[in-house]
Amino acid sequence: MAPVLLTEEQRKTLIPKDWSMVEGRDAIKRTFMFKDFNQAFGFMTRVALVAEQMCHHPEWFNVYNKVEVVLATHDCGGLSTNDTTMATTMDKFFDEQKQN
Amino acid sequence: MAPVLLTEEQRKTLIPKDWSMVEGRDAIKRTFMFKDFNQAFGFMTRVALVAEQMCHHPEWFNVYNKVEVVLATHDCGGLSTNDTTMATTMDKFFDEQKQN
Amino acid sequence: MAPVLLTEEQRKTLIPKDWSMVEGRDAIKRTFMFKDFNQAFGFMTRVALVAEQMCHHPEWFNVYNKVEVVLATHDCGGLSTNDTTMATTMDKFFDEQKQN
Amino acid sequence: MAPVLLTEEQRKTLIPKDWSMVEGRDAIKRTFMFKDFNQAFGFMTRVALVAEQMCHHPEWFNVYNKVEVVLATHDCGGLSTNDTTMATTMDKFFDEQKQN
Repeated sequence: MAPVLLTEEQRKTLIPKDWSMVEGRDAIKRTFMFKDFNQAFGFMTRVALVAEQMCHHPEWFNVYNKVEVVLATHDCGGLSTNDTTMATTMDKFFDEQKQN
Repeated sequence: MAPVLLTEEQRKTLIPKDWSMVEGRDAIKRTFMFKDFNQAFGFMTRVALVAEQMCHHPEWFNVYNKVEVVLATHDCGGLSTNDTTMATTMDKFFDEQKQN
Repeated sequence: MAPVLLTEEQRKTLIPKDWSMVEGRDAIKRTFMFKDFNQAFGFMTRVALVAEQMCHHPEWFNVYNKVEVVLATHDCGGLSTNDTTMATTMDKFFDEQKQN
Repeated sequence: MAPVLLTEEQRKTLIPKDWSMVEGRDAIKRTFMFKDFNQAFGFMTRVALVAEQMCHHPEWFNVYNKVEVVLATHDCGGLSTNDTTMATTMDKFFDEQKQN
């Protein structure tokens, strides 16, 4: 089944609180800060494994300990539940990584 | 020894041909296109291993099969041999990955 | 659909030539030799991405440039098409990695 | 400087408590259990980055959520501080990964 755009109601409940809208695009973004590159790339590897499983890939930028992510769904030209599921998974992986 | 800016002479010989200058910044960039995310992330993992070894990390953006890289050296505010070494290594890894 | 054991006929055609039977077990094995750890771990990452997609994970041992793999399917107590598909994919990734 | 064998005194203080001696070999081992393959491979990637940095690589076996590690130093034919440093780093990465 092709992904469909989130309804207004879904947007209120499914987009996690640490994510915000990208200006001028139906997409969400979050920046993750880690202690160092090692933690950041460990996180990216875990996300990569899920991305392939879901066949849904992030747009992401990394430099050293910073990972900036943008999520949107090409097949429906905007946000779908694939994006909110991916966002929730990334939040979970981030929370599982103790920072100190 | 702290990294130092490349001289004009070094820039002519050390910057690999597939890399170009970033506008408004003393930095170089190249976009790598792969067959799919699997190849792209395999490449990124190999580069990550070298980045940690060199303690020199790329600024990079990925979506699916595309990896956009910018290289510059913070400690000297521009291009150093660290960047040209990293660029050469990335080119090598890219060339080692058969595309078909 | 649960995986089923390969028939004798399937074993002849589906098991790739570089793989051999594990003694005392209905499983196949192959040892991959790379130039260095960097290549070996790049290969492992690509395989890991596929393993999660297929929900079928190798038994593998690594030290430096060597990756020893054993494939079998727990759910059917021996070899299934999941194993021959994974073996074929590993062979492909290995062949795609230029060694020099 | 080439690595040297740990003294008896060093063995008492430097080998972390969760590691034990390998039978018949001057080497230490530990088995790490994760929730799933995703966590296990995220851990392995973080360790791989350190291994390349240290130029000291583990002997490790993985299947799904299990990672079995053996550490020893080829250049001195047994345990060196490279192994206890690597063991301590692995313990730290393991402890940083929340399991639930």
